[in-house]
Amino acid sequence: MKVTLEEAAKLLTERDKILILNHAHPDGDTLGCGYALCHALLSMGKQVSVLCEDEIPKVFAFVQNGIPKMEFEPEYIVAVDIATVELMGKGVGERFGDKVDLCIDHHGTNKMYADKVLLDDTAAAACEIVYSLIETMGVPFTKQMADCLYLGISTDTGCFRYSNVTSTTMRKAAALMDLGADCARINREIFETKSRTFAKLERLALNSVEMHFDDLFATVTVTQEMFRESGCGEDEFDRIAAIPRQIEGVLVGAAIRELKTGGYKMSIRTNPPMNAAEIAGRMNGGGHPAAAGCTLMESLPETKRILSEIVREELRKMGKLE
Amino acid sequence: MKVTLEEAAKLLTERDKILILNHAHPDGDTLGCGYALCHALLSMGKQVSVLCEDEIPKVFAFVQNGIPKMEFEPEYIVAVDIATVELMGKGVGERFGDKVDLCIDHHGTNKMYADKVLLDDTAAAACEIVYSLIETMGVPFTKQMADCLYLGISTDTGCFRYSNVTSTTMRKAAALMDLGADCARINREIFETKSRTFAKLERLALNSVEMHFDDLFATVTVTQEMFRESGCGEDEFDRIAAIPRQIEGVLVGAAIRELKTGGYKMSIRTNPPMNAAEIAGRMNGGGHPAAAGCTLMESLPETKRILSEIVREELRKMGKLE
Repeated sequence: MKVTLEEAAKLLTERDKILILNHAHPDGDTLGCGYALCHALLSMGKQVSVLCEDEIPKVFAFVQNGIPKMEFEPEYIVAVDIATVELMGKGVGERFGDKVDLCIDHHGTNKMYADKVLLDDTAAAACEIVYSLIETMGVPFTKQMADCLYLGISTDTGCFRYSNVTSTTMRKAAALMDLGADCARINREIFETKSRTFAKLERLALNSVEMHFDDLFATVTVTQEMFRESGCGEDEFDRIAAIPRQIEGVLVGAAIRELKTGGYKMSIRTNPPMNAAEIAGRMNGGGHPAAAGCTLMESLPETKRILSEIVREELRKMGKLE
Repeated sequence: MKVTLEEAAKLLTERDKILILNHAHPDGDTLGCGYALCHALLSMGKQVSVLCEDEIPKVFAFVQNGIPKMEFEPEYIVAVDIATVELMGKGVGERFGDKVDLCIDHHGTNKMYADKVLLDDTAAAACEIVYSLIETMGVPFTKQMADCLYLGISTDTGCFRYSNVTSTTMRKAAALMDLGADCARINREIFETKSRTFAKLERLALNSVEMHFDDLFATVTVTQEMFRESGCGEDEFDRIAAIPRQIEGVLVGAAIRELKTGGYKMSIRTNPPMNAAEIAGRMNGGGHPAAAGCTLMESLPETKRILSEIVREELRKMGKLE
C-alpha cells in the first residue's frame, strides 16, 4: 500500500528497533538514504542499524562515520532504494525480503513487495525522498545527514548531468550545501578521481575502441589480460562502460568484458531512439532503456558477431541503417 | 571603478548601440554571458552585438540562435568574463581594449582595465552575475537566455562538481531549469559527448602521462604532431587539461600544450592545499586557486624543467614534499 510522507514519518516516529536495508552492490543513493535515515532515527533516541549484503566501496565508507554498532532484534524493517527483493542479494533477501514494513523508493518499477511503500518516481534519487521525510519528521538536519543525502543525489544524477534532474533536485542540493555538506570533496573523490590502475585500464580500453555501421555502433573490449596488466579491479569497470556511447554520433555503445569464468559480459548503453534493454533482452539480459547488460558464453569473435548482428537489426528497425 | 548591480543595470538601461566582447578561445561562460545579455538588451529594443576574436566552438553554437546580425557604430563597450585585455585576443584587444566602459567579471585577478567594473569573485561563473543583472534590469527571462546562462554556469563548474559551486549557484541553476533551460541536452552534448577526433587525442594524451614527486605531480603533454595525428582542434584541449589532476593522490596536475607559434601553454589544476594561481603566477600567468594557466617560450625539456622546479618548491612550501 502506498503511503504519504506524513504517514511514513508517523510510522517511523512511532516505531523502535529499526533495521534499514540497502541493496546489494551498494551505490551512493542506497547508502546515502540508509545512513541519513539512520542518523535521523538515532537522534530521536531509537535503536537503528543499516544492513547490506555486500561491503561498502571505499569511496562511500564515510557514510558510516559516527554510527554506533547496535545489536538488537529488529521490530521494524525499512528498505531504501530497493525496487525488488532480488536486489537485496541472496542472504538479505532470504532473511528479510518478505518482512519489509516500509519501502522508500524512486523506481517506477518497484514491485510493491513491502507492506507500506513511500514511492516518488519523479525523484532523481531516493535521497530526495529521504530528505523530505526527515524534514517531515521534524528532525534537525546535521552535517552528517547532509553529506549522506548529497552523496545519493549527486551519484544518481551523474553530478546533476542526467535528464532525471529537476529544479527540485537542484534546490534540495542547495539546501544540503547550506547545511554544510562537503560537496566539493564528495564530488572530487567520486567524479574527479581515478586510481592509477584505473587510468592504466582506461588507456588500454581506449586503444581497443572499434567503430561499426557508419559509426553508429562503438565497442570497447576489456580482457582479463588488460585487468592484469593495469592492476585494476573489475569493480572499476563501470566507468569504462560509459566510453563507447560518449563518442559523437554513436547510438549504441557496448563495453565487452571478459569474465574470469569464461564468456563475455556486455554493458550496453544507448542514446535515443535506441533501446538498450531491448538489445540486451535479445541476449537474455535486461535493464533500463538507456543502460542494460547481458552475458554470452561464447568466444570473443563469436560474441562480437552475435552482438553486431542484433545491433544491426535494431538500428535498421529504427530506420537508422539501410 | 567598481559598480553595484543596480548601477550596472542603470548604465545598460540608459545606453544604446552596445558592443559586448567575449574573450578569445571562447568558453561556455563568456559566450553564455555575452548572448544572454545580448538577448536581454535586444528585448529592450536596443542595438546590440557580440564580438569574439575566435570562432565559436560548434558545441556552443546554439547561443547565437535568434540573434540578428546588426551593423552599427558602437557607443558603449561591455566586456564579459574577461580579466585582462590580453585575454581578448590581439585584434579585439587592440581595437577595444582601452575603450571598455563596463566589465562584468568573476575573476579576483581582474586588472580593472575598464571604466566601470561589476565584479563578484564569489560567483562560480560570470553567468551568475549576468543572471542577477538581467533580473535587476527587470527584463523577463526567456528560454534562450536561460539556455545561455545555464551553459555558462554548468561549464564553469564542471557541471556542479567543482569547489567554486555555492548554494546560490545551485539555486540559480534551479531557476534556469524552471525557465525552460534545456539542461539535459546541454549537459549531454558538453559533458557526455566526445568527438571521434577528441577520443583519439585523449588516447594519445593518456599515453603521455608522467608522474613526479611521489606521484603528487602529474603532467600530460600534447604536441602539434598529436593534434595532427588525431585531427582534433585545439579548442577541445580544455578537456585534456582535467586529466592529470584526476589521478588519485595528485595535488598538482599540468597539461602542457605545444603552441603553433612555438612555446608551450600550461593548464595547471590543483587540489587543496595547492594553489594553481600561485604556481602559474610564478611563470607570469594567472587564474583561479584551483585552475590557472601560463605560457613559456622555451623548448619542451626546458618548459618541463622550469615547471617542475616551481611545483617542487610549492609542494615543499606546503609541507607536502621534503
